[in-house]
Amino acid sequence: MNALPEKTAASELATYVRAIGAAARAAAAPMARASTADKDRALAALAQGLRAGRDAIARANAEDLARARAGGLDAAALDRLALSSAAIETMALGVDQIQRLADPIGSIDDVRPRPSGIQVGRMRVPLGVIGIIYESRPNVTVDAAALCIKSGNATVLRGGSEAIESNRVLARLVAEALAAAGLPRDAVQLIDTTDREAVGQLVRLPEFIDVIVPRGGRSLIERLMRESRVPMIKHLDGICHVYVDDTADLDMAVRIADNAKTQRYGTCNTMETLLVAAALAAEFLPRIGRRYAEKGVELRGCPATLAILGAAGIPGLVAASEEDWRTEYLAPILSIRVVDGLDAAIAHINTYGSRHTDAIVTNDHPRAMRFLREVDSASVMVNASTRFADGFEYGLGAEIGISNDKLHARGPVGLDGLTSLKYVVLGSGQVRGA
Amino acid sequence: MNALPEKTAASELATYVRAIGAAARAAAAPMARASTADKDRALAALAQGLRAGRDAIARANAEDLARARAGGLDAAALDRLALSSAAIETMALGVDQIQRLADPIGSIDDVRPRPSGIQVGRMRVPLGVIGIIYESRPNVTVDAAALCIKSGNATVLRGGSEAIESNRVLARLVAEALAAAGLPRDAVQLIDTTDREAVGQLVRLPEFIDVIVPRGGRSLIERLMRESRVPMIKHLDGICHVYVDDTADLDMAVRIADNAKTQRYGTCNTMETLLVAAALAAEFLPRIGRRYAEKGVELRGCPATLAILGAAGIPGLVAASEEDWRTEYLAPILSIRVVDGLDAAIAHINTYGSRHTDAIVTNDHPRAMRFLREVDSASVMVNASTRFADGFEYGLGAEIGISNDKLHARGPVGLDGLTSLKYVVLGSGQVRGA
Repeated sequence: MNALPEKTAASELATYVRAIGAAARAAAAPMARASTADKDRALAALAQGLRAGRDAIARANAEDLARARAGGLDAAALDRLALSSAAIETMALGVDQIQRLADPIGSIDDVRPRPSGIQVGRMRVPLGVIGIIYESRPNVTVDAAALCIKSGNATVLRGGSEAIESNRVLARLVAEALAAAGLPRDAVQLIDTTDREAVGQLVRLPEFIDVIVPRGGRSLIERLMRESRVPMIKHLDGICHVYVDDTADLDMAVRIADNAKTQRYGTCNTMETLLVAAALAAEFLPRIGRRYAEKGVELRGCPATLAILGAAGIPGLVAASEEDWRTEYLAPILSIRVVDGLDAAIAHINTYGSRHTDAIVTNDHPRAMRFLREVDSASVMVNASTRFADGFEYGLGAEIGISNDKLHARGPVGLDGLTSLKYVVLGSGQVRGA
Repeated sequence: MNALPEKTAASELATYVRAIGAAARAAAAPMARASTADKDRALAALAQGLRAGRDAIARANAEDLARARAGGLDAAALDRLALSSAAIETMALGVDQIQRLADPIGSIDDVRPRPSGIQVGRMRVPLGVIGIIYESRPNVTVDAAALCIKSGNATVLRGGSEAIESNRVLARLVAEALAAAGLPRDAVQLIDTTDREAVGQLVRLPEFIDVIVPRGGRSLIERLMRESRVPMIKHLDGICHVYVDDTADLDMAVRIADNAKTQRYGTCNTMETLLVAAALAAEFLPRIGRRYAEKGVELRGCPATLAILGAAGIPGLVAASEEDWRTEYLAPILSIRVVDGLDAAIAHINTYGSRHTDAIVTNDHPRAMRFLREVDSASVMVNASTRFADGFEYGLGAEIGISNDKLHARGPVGLDGLTSLKYVVLGSGQVRGA
């Protein structure tokens, strides 16, 4: 598809997005039956194209960066937008890695004979057409395209307007790699307009798009939850908890609570609220409080927390409000609450959390098992940092996103999340009795 | 919850349905952690209650039947509404059977060590709150309740208004069985009003209801697809195909094409369109055509079909229109099309079908494999009747419904479709490196 001018009549935009959707739907069947060898050849060509196209990518990215700077984008957003030479190589390595993953498509599992004489199993097949809506990071163009190619899906990409020049070049490299392997160029298409309404059009095409994977901030996801007529694989936010039980190993609890908050502040699996068993609070809180204070983490505590940390001389304490328990800070801020024990911790998490990732630190086995079963989150952990909730750390080989929903994929979503299982019945002439 | 009068102010109805939703959400946590023994005790009490309550059920059902007859309900609908003594025993036997199924909840699979030292696995847990919306069959009240109890979910039932007296008695027996096992009575609630708008209220409560399973005709499903804010496990229709390849065993093809159409006319896995390879049509069509004619099946054919069947003296032929290929007759009517071969058959099915169940009859292995992979339906079959697409025939032990969608459950949905898999991380103090 060609680019559209920045501002287009609504009807023209709708026609353009529909045409992309229809072309993706048409490409879905040849992609679904594509051989592993052809898909891997496309991925190898893409990795090679990225390396050979480094200069063209850098030039396009420089245009995006210049426009973004002129437009006053902040430093963090500029950082997400920038494609250094190293970042381009990282993209290529990511494609190499996806190429090496096992092809999930066509496997047939659990074939079982039935009393009627038929055999029943399940075959893994692509979902069909995946729509990816993302913000400033242009590397998502390549990561998402590679995952969708490997899983035999067609894809419609809608990147952020700040990255449009970079995305154009990357999408062209993807199309060339598909063509080099004899696969349809339309199997990966970029919606090549910066008109914001294109997103609204895309998510209203359930006849062409099977699932939308939104990658972006809360306002994008909230908008899509209102507008989308297509099912989504998504999470709205990550309000993750660590509960330090009174049987916890103190050193381990300090290490995990430190890592879960401070290893990176801006990720969805970062801890936002620390829950501490009352019996342990007087001993544990001053130790972890000093660690946070050294790293400049602002602490917002319940009254019991403030009393203990205040007495320990920790500076800059803030009283936590009800709103704090529901807040994903994505920043060096942490809310802390002293709770009576496991029941109160589970109740807090299931009330205020976002069903993303929650961990307990404990040496008590029955409590560990209860936490795993009763905390209603996509990832539940014992004696490990919430920061492990990640497709690579889980061994999925790659990650298209994280889902907090319970239907279909839950937690980090890899190749399997882009597939479905259909029933396969192998008979030898059986018919059904009365 | 108490019953509401038939016509209620909209605000009062909304308050009533919200209260039921909130009570179901509150019951979801105790149900999720209920032991296998307690759930099985509730099911045993339910089966016993149904047998002991036979007379009360029959009296309530007689009231429903009398009102339905006075209201001019047709014979088929009256038949679906009726609960004979044998039907009550069948319900009890169904509950016995669900009790004997393995409890899916709490199982942890695929625990694998990762290089970081953590172990990652997946635990099967309930979805939470299931809303079941169904039409005249009151036995769904018991079947759905039993499946949801076994899978640890809370349930909100909304049956057809014709069956309200029967459903009230059955729901009371379910509540008493739950209480007898020490489980919350609100784990299974009936929306006890015949006000049609209650359905609209229920499907707009995503905060309380995790998934809706609609069981009913096309108009109900279409309405819910427009109105529901809650994900659904559903199928709109079953336009199932049998493709007879030119390598098919003729006797087998006749047997399967006969069974797929005529074993039962009104089920969603009944064949609605027969596709026949051109090379075989002149031999096969007269044989199967005579069989259908004997059974009074109206045949609507493409021109080639009409020519062959007409020459063979088959009476009452009708020319098929484009609309026929898209029609689920649910009646002794069949559309027939002669196609060039496998590619045309797959293209027809993927164009006109409803992604429900499709079968090929063939002796050619590569074609069988291509059919399985390329037909984009929930169930794909080789040399077997489409009528096998059923939870019991597949060995699921029970069936809450059938899904034509690709996300989450696809095909017949048993206990596992009412569950989700969450990630479980077992650590010993691991934190994530930089």
